[in-house]
Amino acid sequence: MQTYDTSESISLFNRAREVIPGGIYGHYAASNKRAGPRYFSRAEGAHFWDVDGNDYIDYMCAYGPNILGYNNQVVDEAAQAQYRLGNTVSLVAPITIELAEVLVDMVTAADWALFGKNGGDSTGLAVRIARAETGRRKVVKVTDGYHGVAPWMMATMDFESARTGTVPEDGAHILQVPWNDTDAFEQLIGEHKDDIACFISSPYDHPTMRDNELPDDGYWRKMEKLCRDNGIVLIVDDVRAGFRINLAGSNVAYGFTPDLICFGKAIANGYPLSALVGTDALREAATKVFYTGTQFFNAAPMAAAKATLLELQRANAATKITETGAALNEGLVRVASQQGYELIASGVPAMPFYRLANVPTAAHFAWVDECVKRGVYFLGYHNHFVSTAHTQADLGRTFEIVNDAFIAMGDPGSHQTV
Amino acid sequence: MQTYDTSESISLFNRAREVIPGGIYGHYAASNKRAGPRYFSRAEGAHFWDVDGNDYIDYMCAYGPNILGYNNQVVDEAAQAQYRLGNTVSLVAPITIELAEVLVDMVTAADWALFGKNGGDSTGLAVRIARAETGRRKVVKVTDGYHGVAPWMMATMDFESARTGTVPEDGAHILQVPWNDTDAFEQLIGEHKDDIACFISSPYDHPTMRDNELPDDGYWRKMEKLCRDNGIVLIVDDVRAGFRINLAGSNVAYGFTPDLICFGKAIANGYPLSALVGTDALREAATKVFYTGTQFFNAAPMAAAKATLLELQRANAATKITETGAALNEGLVRVASQQGYELIASGVPAMPFYRLANVPTAAHFAWVDECVKRGVYFLGYHNHFVSTAHTQADLGRTFEIVNDAFIAMGDPGSHQTV
Repeated sequence: MQTYDTSESISLFNRAREVIPGGIYGHYAASNKRAGPRYFSRAEGAHFWDVDGNDYIDYMCAYGPNILGYNNQVVDEAAQAQYRLGNTVSLVAPITIELAEVLVDMVTAADWALFGKNGGDSTGLAVRIARAETGRRKVVKVTDGYHGVAPWMMATMDFESARTGTVPEDGAHILQVPWNDTDAFEQLIGEHKDDIACFISSPYDHPTMRDNELPDDGYWRKMEKLCRDNGIVLIVDDVRAGFRINLAGSNVAYGFTPDLICFGKAIANGYPLSALVGTDALREAATKVFYTGTQFFNAAPMAAAKATLLELQRANAATKITETGAALNEGLVRVASQQGYELIASGVPAMPFYRLANVPTAAHFAWVDECVKRGVYFLGYHNHFVSTAHTQADLGRTFEIVNDAFIAMGDPGSHQTV
Repeated sequence: MQTYDTSESISLFNRAREVIPGGIYGHYAASNKRAGPRYFSRAEGAHFWDVDGNDYIDYMCAYGPNILGYNNQVVDEAAQAQYRLGNTVSLVAPITIELAEVLVDMVTAADWALFGKNGGDSTGLAVRIARAETGRRKVVKVTDGYHGVAPWMMATMDFESARTGTVPEDGAHILQVPWNDTDAFEQLIGEHKDDIACFISSPYDHPTMRDNELPDDGYWRKMEKLCRDNGIVLIVDDVRAGFRINLAGSNVAYGFTPDLICFGKAIANGYPLSALVGTDALREAATKVFYTGTQFFNAAPMAAAKATLLELQRANAATKITETGAALNEGLVRVASQQGYELIASGVPAMPFYRLANVPTAAHFAWVDECVKRGVYFLGYHNHFVSTAHTQADLGRTFEIVNDAFIAMGDPGSHQTV
């Protein structure tokens, strides 16, 4: 503890501010405002090391891509083999077809696949396909659902920084309903009869800054029926949760079938790729929408994705990380309780969101900082991620560190409650 | 010639159609409609080989990324070294800072840099920064300028497939002016006084399907002055031409200074990366716009980009490919002339657009097919690209093949003229 030092991170950050607005941008910028490390030097399995040499058990997994462990040998070798043949070339690589075949085979609802780079490439395409298929304008999303930084998405967000640089017309046809509220959706259908193109939502609600919420019993079957009865395209944004709840699509766990599913993050274990899969009914509309990008056709990330998906199947990964996440949650709640604190774990076990109950938000973040500086990388305002590389030894060490963090926090009664 | 066979490409394409809408999508889909190869097996330097084993001298360069030759050893080793350390991790990699420093050092107008994956990530961010800075709504672009597939861009395109799945509001504040028409821009300024946020344009006009056009003398200086005098942010979309005309920014060649420059394609020689660079005046606005993507922080493509930019400087690449392109144009025009044809080469020499004059479009495409099946990969409706890996031997062989292609076309008079 006496040796914990992030001076090299701070030094690099100050250098970065000269040539990068804000120093660190995007979703990584949250770390600017906190104590703790800002730059990594290397990563392996479930660990990364910062530029000051500190070792962390990592429960952010690069905000989702890392599902098989950093520098997974099988995935890296598949990518390297494709790099040796060629990556971005004037023709398409055959691996594109092989990858689409694996997805169609693996994902229950998938009859076809298209590939992009970021999750937002896939959500944007999904909305365009829905509008092309239906000839309708309205897009219904969950109130605090996040589907990437495109203007149609950002223009309706509550926080001003999201809307900065958008125009009101960007959100002209975006409607929002609260999570788990089928009545609100039914009401919108009544108000916008025959003009709702699609409903887009993650399989469960995983916003930042508050407890994550699973679907109520019957929620998805009711939403599916409302979509079917009213000709509304049902889009699951499985970018974050995809391959973590069920390898056949998170919808399978909740007993419904969407028309389109957006994947990203874990699909290639950190190589840049996203995918949109869909049903035969939308194949023609998918063919009509012009969707492209210089980097959409990189072959090596596709080889990495094929290897990742096959490894996920071989390792029965969704089940394994669900079990690991459940053990993590159970241990953390127990350790907290032993020190007089109440820890709430919400969301699915493979993507736990943690909140210290009965203390002010500042005390929750102070606890996260105490964990981070002892070598457990938590974030405090975002769901976490568990990978197949997290071992029993990692969990055991995590519990020891978290116990020490609670001890450092002192008596729970010393924190003013909200 | 008798041995030219693309049956394996066709076989793969038929397999692809089962699992990918249309078989091949995006800008690569153009090859669906033509004879010729559809899938590569490997690539090296200025050549690729298709899945049937045919060898091509490649003048498409993956539609732009390939500038140092496929599988460039220096770039690949830099990427591999970063992969071994870690690629997509829960913290930012220090290489991000080093890359931004190289860009700021190399690109005259750049005081800072931000990174994405595709060119469209950078153009979309540029527009948002311009709106955030000015508090204005209107975006002026050149009539047939292309800045990616985002709805704001596609909604105003002439061809219907571009607009499919967009809504009219997507293009609500997009205004267009013809290329090289400063009067039209001045008129728009008069009509939308104090509501024009930015002018976005490539440094010269490189549309598909027609001759590319360089800026008229004085065009850019006039446009720059109109922007300065009216508080309009000047954005150069250098995604395609960047590092091919001048390593300090294509604007340097035309004697003006933009506020923002979008880079992509060649920046990392085929590794997925794009960049937006800008001036200090826009640093604060750039900090305010929320811009992110899961894959924006991949470290290996940044290492590849740093190595690419340093190699481009070491090789004096823009000058070299301009000379190679000029020699290619001169040779092709000469060969055409010897066979009684007139070939028009337009655009900058490093990105030549070719058109057979005085023959119907079908004859132009037939000539392209005759070149392709002999091993020179041209596209017919799109500008081409020259890399530093194109050798004198490649050019010599190209002239022989193109000569044979003209002979196969027969007497120019046999083609009905338009």
